[in-house]
Amino acid sequence: MKTLSQLAEQFNKLPGVGPKTAMRLAHHVLFAMSAQDADAFAGAVRDSKKNLRLCRTCFSIAEDEECGVCRNPNRDPKTILVVADVRDLLAVEETGFFKGRYHVLGGLISPLQRVGPEKLRVAELKTRVASGSIHEVILGTVPTAEGEVTAHYLINQLRESGVKITRIGAGIPVGGSLEYMDAMTVTKAILNRQEMLAADKGRGI
Amino acid sequence: MKTLSQLAEQFNKLPGVGPKTAMRLAHHVLFAMSAQDADAFAGAVRDSKKNLRLCRTCFSIAEDEECGVCRNPNRDPKTILVVADVRDLLAVEETGFFKGRYHVLGGLISPLQRVGPEKLRVAELKTRVASGSIHEVILGTVPTAEGEVTAHYLINQLRESGVKITRIGAGIPVGGSLEYMDAMTVTKAILNRQEMLAADKGRGI
Repeated sequence: MKTLSQLAEQFNKLPGVGPKTAMRLAHHVLFAMSAQDADAFAGAVRDSKKNLRLCRTCFSIAEDEECGVCRNPNRDPKTILVVADVRDLLAVEETGFFKGRYHVLGGLISPLQRVGPEKLRVAELKTRVASGSIHEVILGTVPTAEGEVTAHYLINQLRESGVKITRIGAGIPVGGSLEYMDAMTVTKAILNRQEMLAADKGRGI
Repeated sequence: MKTLSQLAEQFNKLPGVGPKTAMRLAHHVLFAMSAQDADAFAGAVRDSKKNLRLCRTCFSIAEDEECGVCRNPNRDPKTILVVADVRDLLAVEETGFFKGRYHVLGGLISPLQRVGPEKLRVAELKTRVASGSIHEVILGTVPTAEGEVTAHYLINQLRESGVKITRIGAGIPVGGSLEYMDAMTVTKAILNRQEMLAADKGRGI
């Protein structure tokens, strides 16, 4: 029985997987999956960690030094959409609507979860913006407490750069998350972005 | 991005895990788990299949040739509780109430899922009962269509053996499953089992 309970324990560590679901999944692996499928599953978990590379520019997942979006000459390098993580990036990519590039923060500021701005890729964003080739930074953090705090922190950090800062807004219900929105809602949120700081306004004041 | 999507695909194959949940779990493995924890998880999946042994008597999970219940001299060898699978067995074991032994069928008869009685361990149950040392077989299949069909099939198969056959009943709501019941309900279902065939009644008629 140890075989089953040890495996269930591992599933139980995953987010949103309680003890009953963990047992159901472990039972499935043991009695419904072929040994070959279980090996493929285990291999995918192990290899994914080994093969994980982050884009040196936007910190999305990359197969190479830079990700597919950053290497794509058809993607507008002057517009950066700042997102919390890769899942949010994928939700935007699925719409096929956004033609700019990304910056993956690696989370949101959360005092409760002890995530301060120093744990996010803010310095890297400032460096990109300071390079001078960026015209607009779209803040794509969701309208939750953490998303709002992060957006306002970024506005303050980018204020002096003189770059245009916008924020996705209309379309995402308060408390919602980008990942679970349909493509139309995400598209609308990008279209209806509000200007937070006009270009050059912050410069020299 | 292939790293993430390939891993998400693997999670998506698990029962009850849709594409969104699969993506959430894959993202967790990639960005929230340590490489060590991911290795432990992958190892548990792989090793569980390699180390899986079934008890030669009751077909529960065993560390050895026989499982802990079958090797335990304090468990009544005259009473067999027939269950669909190991999860149901564990639900009963958790109550700590049942002191007999088990027989794990390996499923329930289900025409829809093309599971006929020949795919279940019915012959093995008949052999155990035919050994003569069994006094009572408790049918622990749940009161769903599949559970009822399986119970009646087993009653017919064991009719000639002269063994007492009972069926767990009161306490389990129709359509429910043993696994999600609380210990009291499972205990009650075993206490309130109904006699389906009295000992020796079937013999010689």
